[in-house]
Amino acid sequence: MAGERDFIQSLRNIATNPAARGLVDDAAILEIGGKRLVLTHDMIVEGVHYLPSDPAEDVAWKLVAVNLSDLAAKGAVPLGILVGYTLSREGAWDEAFVRGLAEAAAAFSVPLLGGDTVALPNGSARVLGLTAIGESDAAPSRSGARPGDLLWVTGTIGDGGLGLEIAVRGQHEPAVPLRRYRRPIPRLHAGQALAPLVSAMMDVSDGLLIDASRMGEASGAAIRIDLGRVPLSEPFAEAVGIDRAARLRATTSGDDYELLFAAPAAREEDIHAIAESLNLAVTPVGAVEEGHGLRIMHHGEDVPLPARLGYEHGSAL
Amino acid sequence: MAGERDFIQSLRNIATNPAARGLVDDAAILEIGGKRLVLTHDMIVEGVHYLPSDPAEDVAWKLVAVNLSDLAAKGAVPLGILVGYTLSREGAWDEAFVRGLAEAAAAFSVPLLGGDTVALPNGSARVLGLTAIGESDAAPSRSGARPGDLLWVTGTIGDGGLGLEIAVRGQHEPAVPLRRYRRPIPRLHAGQALAPLVSAMMDVSDGLLIDASRMGEASGAAIRIDLGRVPLSEPFAEAVGIDRAARLRATTSGDDYELLFAAPAAREEDIHAIAESLNLAVTPVGAVEEGHGLRIMHHGEDVPLPARLGYEHGSAL
Repeated sequence: MAGERDFIQSLRNIATNPAARGLVDDAAILEIGGKRLVLTHDMIVEGVHYLPSDPAEDVAWKLVAVNLSDLAAKGAVPLGILVGYTLSREGAWDEAFVRGLAEAAAAFSVPLLGGDTVALPNGSARVLGLTAIGESDAAPSRSGARPGDLLWVTGTIGDGGLGLEIAVRGQHEPAVPLRRYRRPIPRLHAGQALAPLVSAMMDVSDGLLIDASRMGEASGAAIRIDLGRVPLSEPFAEAVGIDRAARLRATTSGDDYELLFAAPAAREEDIHAIAESLNLAVTPVGAVEEGHGLRIMHHGEDVPLPARLGYEHGSAL
Repeated sequence: MAGERDFIQSLRNIATNPAARGLVDDAAILEIGGKRLVLTHDMIVEGVHYLPSDPAEDVAWKLVAVNLSDLAAKGAVPLGILVGYTLSREGAWDEAFVRGLAEAAAAFSVPLLGGDTVALPNGSARVLGLTAIGESDAAPSRSGARPGDLLWVTGTIGDGGLGLEIAVRGQHEPAVPLRRYRRPIPRLHAGQALAPLVSAMMDVSDGLLIDASRMGEASGAAIRIDLGRVPLSEPFAEAVGIDRAARLRATTSGDDYELLFAAPAAREEDIHAIAESLNLAVTPVGAVEEGHGLRIMHHGEDVPLPARLGYEHGSAL
């Protein structure tokens, strides 16, 4: 992936406009007419980001959800989406894709505004793109975490990764993690409520450990994560367990689409109040510290970093 | 292409928000904070919209230019672009792409704000996407043409199509049309100056005849084009000629990225004044009439419609 890093560094060298935020965030922030617009563009590729066997409805849903998840991390209210679609030679797949797109757009109250459809040479993988635009007052970046902040996550971690394994095996159970893999729910309301309180926020898409380490790097701070505090779902606990190995698996798999945020310790009660009002688990899983790098612990003991912290197959800019 | 038409119709059924303009325009118009934002997303596919042998710098330039051309047709000032990039296994190609992106962004004064890079399975065609956002006061649609309007084009028609033929043959001459194919110039200043005067405007990307017929269809009016008035460049005239066959070839090939617009006859002098101030040819090539359909003439005689009016390989929404 050195090629990818070089490529993104080259892009950063030309993305000097402040709205680009140095391409370290997952979204651009454009000020216009006294409003703060949030813009993001994420692609998903057949065989890379989703399985060729995934139902087309779910692929469409996921394409919308992963982009809205970037808006959620900016506390944005979605204003619209544009879709970039590579036409298949399978009319039924195309039809199912549009159904899924309509379902997701309705579920998250975001209008389809436009896009492009293109033909694809025979044998090429589908490459599906989506641009989402939203509006946010706070628009926190991922680079604002400060030593002393607590580190939090919404929901539970590891279900999407478990769901991917279930899908790869061609199984249909357990249904809850499979559904979380195929139909993630962007945490839009949580993002909107939390954005004014946080010092940094991003979504967890490539794995909690790798995404947390990215927040630390962007913020110029160290991140400590206590594996024992990482919230696991009941289906995950039943299928995988709750020991250290299970927790490492949960925190290095991707597709969570939960929010990861840092906030001053003084905000703890406000955050719990928001969690209660949203009926959503919001859990402190660690802290921001002086220094740099990622440190993980379990029951008070340091845990060696796994060789792989998460997915690195392409980066949202 | 029935599949594509069905697909786009399905998308139209869900794109009911007024900002989507029923997906008949090449861009969405979003009102926010008293401003009118123009959003467009166009993709280009290796082997479909560009030749695998086209230099990476030129592919990047074209990706930017075709999207800014959609903004030009809305009279918009570009505010930013987001790029969706499929990483190749060729580092030199990626580097050259970034160089072309930087050149185009600088040439058209538009900042790179973000995007996404993704890995691509072996053997897949590159699929490159770009989202452009701009701001416009007038933001004319393609559906406002009215009987009695004159129909105009900027620049010259047919050079891009000739350039494509030169590139397909692996030749390097004549250089001007080849450059116009590889490095089109979106008519941003012309679009901004003309937008307040026109009743309908769009860019010519798939061929003058097919694009004009789309304007007629969207406007519920008939379009008449006088082939003899279609402006041809000197290199085109030298290489292809200026007879009826040459003019049919010019008007059914794509990649012009000129502006096509309809305006009330009373605006004729204002339009010529704008053309002069921009030092750009702006030529009346026909008229909008009652009825529907496309009618082409040459030296006062009706010309049968060719079987193919232009390209239909994918549609900007």
